[in-house]
Amino acid sequence: MSDAKIPYKIYLTEEEMPKAWYNLRADMKNKPAPLLNPGTGKPLAAEELTPIFCEELVKQELDNDTKFFDIPDEILSFYKMFRPSPLVRAYCLEEKLGTPAKIYYKFEGNNTSGSHKLNSAIAQAYYAKKQGLKGVTTETGAGQWGTALSMACAYLGLDCKVYMVKVSYEQKPFRREVMRTYGASVVPSPSDTTEVGRKILAEFPGTTGSLGCAISEAVEVATKNPGYRYVLGSVLNQVLLHQSVIGLETKAALDKYGIKPDTIIGCAGGGSNLGGLIAPFMGEKLRGEADYQIIAVEPASCPSFTRGTYAYDFCDTGMICPLAKMYTLGSSFIPSANHAGGLRFHGMSSTLSQLYHDGYMEARAVEQTSVFEAAEMFARTEGILPAPESSHAIRVAIDEALKCKETGEEKTIVFGLTGTGYFDLVAYQKYNDGEMSDYIPTDEDIAASIAKLPKVGE
Amino acid sequence: MSDAKIPYKIYLTEEEMPKAWYNLRADMKNKPAPLLNPGTGKPLAAEELTPIFCEELVKQELDNDTKFFDIPDEILSFYKMFRPSPLVRAYCLEEKLGTPAKIYYKFEGNNTSGSHKLNSAIAQAYYAKKQGLKGVTTETGAGQWGTALSMACAYLGLDCKVYMVKVSYEQKPFRREVMRTYGASVVPSPSDTTEVGRKILAEFPGTTGSLGCAISEAVEVATKNPGYRYVLGSVLNQVLLHQSVIGLETKAALDKYGIKPDTIIGCAGGGSNLGGLIAPFMGEKLRGEADYQIIAVEPASCPSFTRGTYAYDFCDTGMICPLAKMYTLGSSFIPSANHAGGLRFHGMSSTLSQLYHDGYMEARAVEQTSVFEAAEMFARTEGILPAPESSHAIRVAIDEALKCKETGEEKTIVFGLTGTGYFDLVAYQKYNDGEMSDYIPTDEDIAASIAKLPKVGE
Repeated sequence: MSDAKIPYKIYLTEEEMPKAWYNLRADMKNKPAPLLNPGTGKPLAAEELTPIFCEELVKQELDNDTKFFDIPDEILSFYKMFRPSPLVRAYCLEEKLGTPAKIYYKFEGNNTSGSHKLNSAIAQAYYAKKQGLKGVTTETGAGQWGTALSMACAYLGLDCKVYMVKVSYEQKPFRREVMRTYGASVVPSPSDTTEVGRKILAEFPGTTGSLGCAISEAVEVATKNPGYRYVLGSVLNQVLLHQSVIGLETKAALDKYGIKPDTIIGCAGGGSNLGGLIAPFMGEKLRGEADYQIIAVEPASCPSFTRGTYAYDFCDTGMICPLAKMYTLGSSFIPSANHAGGLRFHGMSSTLSQLYHDGYMEARAVEQTSVFEAAEMFARTEGILPAPESSHAIRVAIDEALKCKETGEEKTIVFGLTGTGYFDLVAYQKYNDGEMSDYIPTDEDIAASIAKLPKVGE
Repeated sequence: MSDAKIPYKIYLTEEEMPKAWYNLRADMKNKPAPLLNPGTGKPLAAEELTPIFCEELVKQELDNDTKFFDIPDEILSFYKMFRPSPLVRAYCLEEKLGTPAKIYYKFEGNNTSGSHKLNSAIAQAYYAKKQGLKGVTTETGAGQWGTALSMACAYLGLDCKVYMVKVSYEQKPFRREVMRTYGASVVPSPSDTTEVGRKILAEFPGTTGSLGCAISEAVEVATKNPGYRYVLGSVLNQVLLHQSVIGLETKAALDKYGIKPDTIIGCAGGGSNLGGLIAPFMGEKLRGEADYQIIAVEPASCPSFTRGTYAYDFCDTGMICPLAKMYTLGSSFIPSANHAGGLRFHGMSSTLSQLYHDGYMEARAVEQTSVFEAAEMFARTEGILPAPESSHAIRVAIDEALKCKETGEEKTIVFGLTGTGYFDLVAYQKYNDGEMSDYIPTDEDIAASIAKLPKVGE
């Protein structure tokens, strides 16, 4: 049943782990468009960002030229607690599908945060600590990012304040308890601990909150409390930089066995996982050294790449954040309540948006029920219960492998398995009970929110 | 901060994985006492067991002489999906404690069942499949064993019926959904699907079930339905045999780096994890080739080793199972509702009981709140949220490391981290809210249930 030479799991040694993050932007001819100040419509300068973000992270955010950033020793030590992550050959899935394709997945879920988010959380917490700060604030929706940040802060002895969207706080009490076990204070948002929270509560007393509102509260607390800064788990350039460790490890593991992938697949919400996974491969593609088919997978209920427009927009629904140029459905777009909370973002990383715009990658939108069908098959054959987000990539990997079955092509497919679904059992229960449905926004829905895009930028 | 030579995680290669299970009983001069037929008081013959258990497993159960059992290729393939498991050097915990001790843990939680239970589940399911059976039945309390068995059955295409203690079925709906996702049928016990279930329901209409009752139902279904057998996740000799893979890997990893442990620590409920972890080390000790301090850790609320008696007793509260000679609190002993469901068993593996009786190992009983204190410290420093069961071993490992801090001894401590606590957040919440308490049974409590021990055996 298996290739004799390639093990089920390829682990790099500690010595083979990447020692520097790779900045994909350095190899892009068309750089991602800069963040704009929504008031002036002008690119944001470093000094406008440092009251919100740590100084070192602002540098990383704005640097489109430095190709490699050394990973500090303290972060490398932390990485060694949960990295290298395995690159797994999906022998059992291949057999189940009867495909000649060779399927690999990079599994980022073997840590208590349950996802790849920890790669950037420790980096952001480290720079905060290094700057002598007391703590950081953030928002969390599904809770993976909040958990990852809590773990990083516990390790470094930093204070961590998480604003958790109220509906998640109430419906996902277990995620909240993991964060509390790591010493974070978790506040349901909107709350009466901030001005913006009190204002929203007065206006909408029954609201269950939103990511946009939680961001506003976290930013307010960071900017009003000396010694605090705000951190974010996706979308930003700095996050993609830290997440490049995923792709660098993947490439090192493949190179170790002389494997050249044909197709690389990742799920895409804000773009942190996809941007990290594809980084070194996209770099080769940009430099003309190799060619790969690169596929971003998004939910049909929130299809920013496949049905959005490429324009400047707010990163948050509260419209307090900088403007970013990206594929967007409009910051007022409210996706249906699908179960992949991490992919329910109206926009997309500026870097990935530029690459998509320039034709370096494709995108597919997939429906929720077919995603859970793939998730179930994967769980039963590969023994890992995947996160709903990750299962979007599984869906398309299976689709591509089944195409190979028809054509007889022995393609090598690599996908990112970003995390586990242990805190997503409400979704699995819906699927198991046959009560899951799909929702695809109408053209009118999308046109309505796109019509409200800000008129700044270009 | 770290020894230069020893990595954070020692992974064996696939080639270095054990190819045979080690049967500790073969090296015991005093063999564990045989199972008795409760009716006749005579040792059970193979033919009395084969209507309940698979033939091959009955052989393994009764064989006190064969030292190694080859692991079939199909099981080895399955093992490769989640094994070898890492032996982790707890550098961060050592630093936090400021101890000169070197601490290692064998981490068995990186699979979707969340524990070591999968090692035996796949073996038992494999032999059922090989015997041409349609399916297997079992009971589950906390749900780790049921999940592991569901995963194994999904992989092999076997039907899997799990009787889940009703209170767990209702309070742990997420464990139930994992099992359902793996295609198992999960029935709250007592149920109206069995005679014994209907009888119990008629007698105690409001009962929330017990492990003993769930065992009775699972055994009834297995024996009444052609093509089914019953399987069990702990206590039995066969289970300890399969779990020896934990100890064999641990020893191979230590040997690879020339490390000789001084102290080996494991939590003990029925004994499956502890028996597996210590197997090869205990073998050396029995053969006089090496000496190790071996410590079994049990909850103070259910202290079978430290406060039980060594006698023949029923393995189940329903008193339908064979009699086993073991350290027991009496099968009528009801432990308080502590949060380590996997350790709430009144008895202990016969093999481990004999070894403890003969002075080859020690036992410690620890209180719940101090266990969660250790769990929290471990989570924050080592980045893994441990299962409450596993945290009993963490507690004693920390205690031993702190002793080394006082004495200056550079002991090497190895403990078993059997699983993760992702489905135990209700317990963590209680701890986080300061609402967790301890319960230690009185001498009278224990005397009362021991007085009810059966008078057969000796």
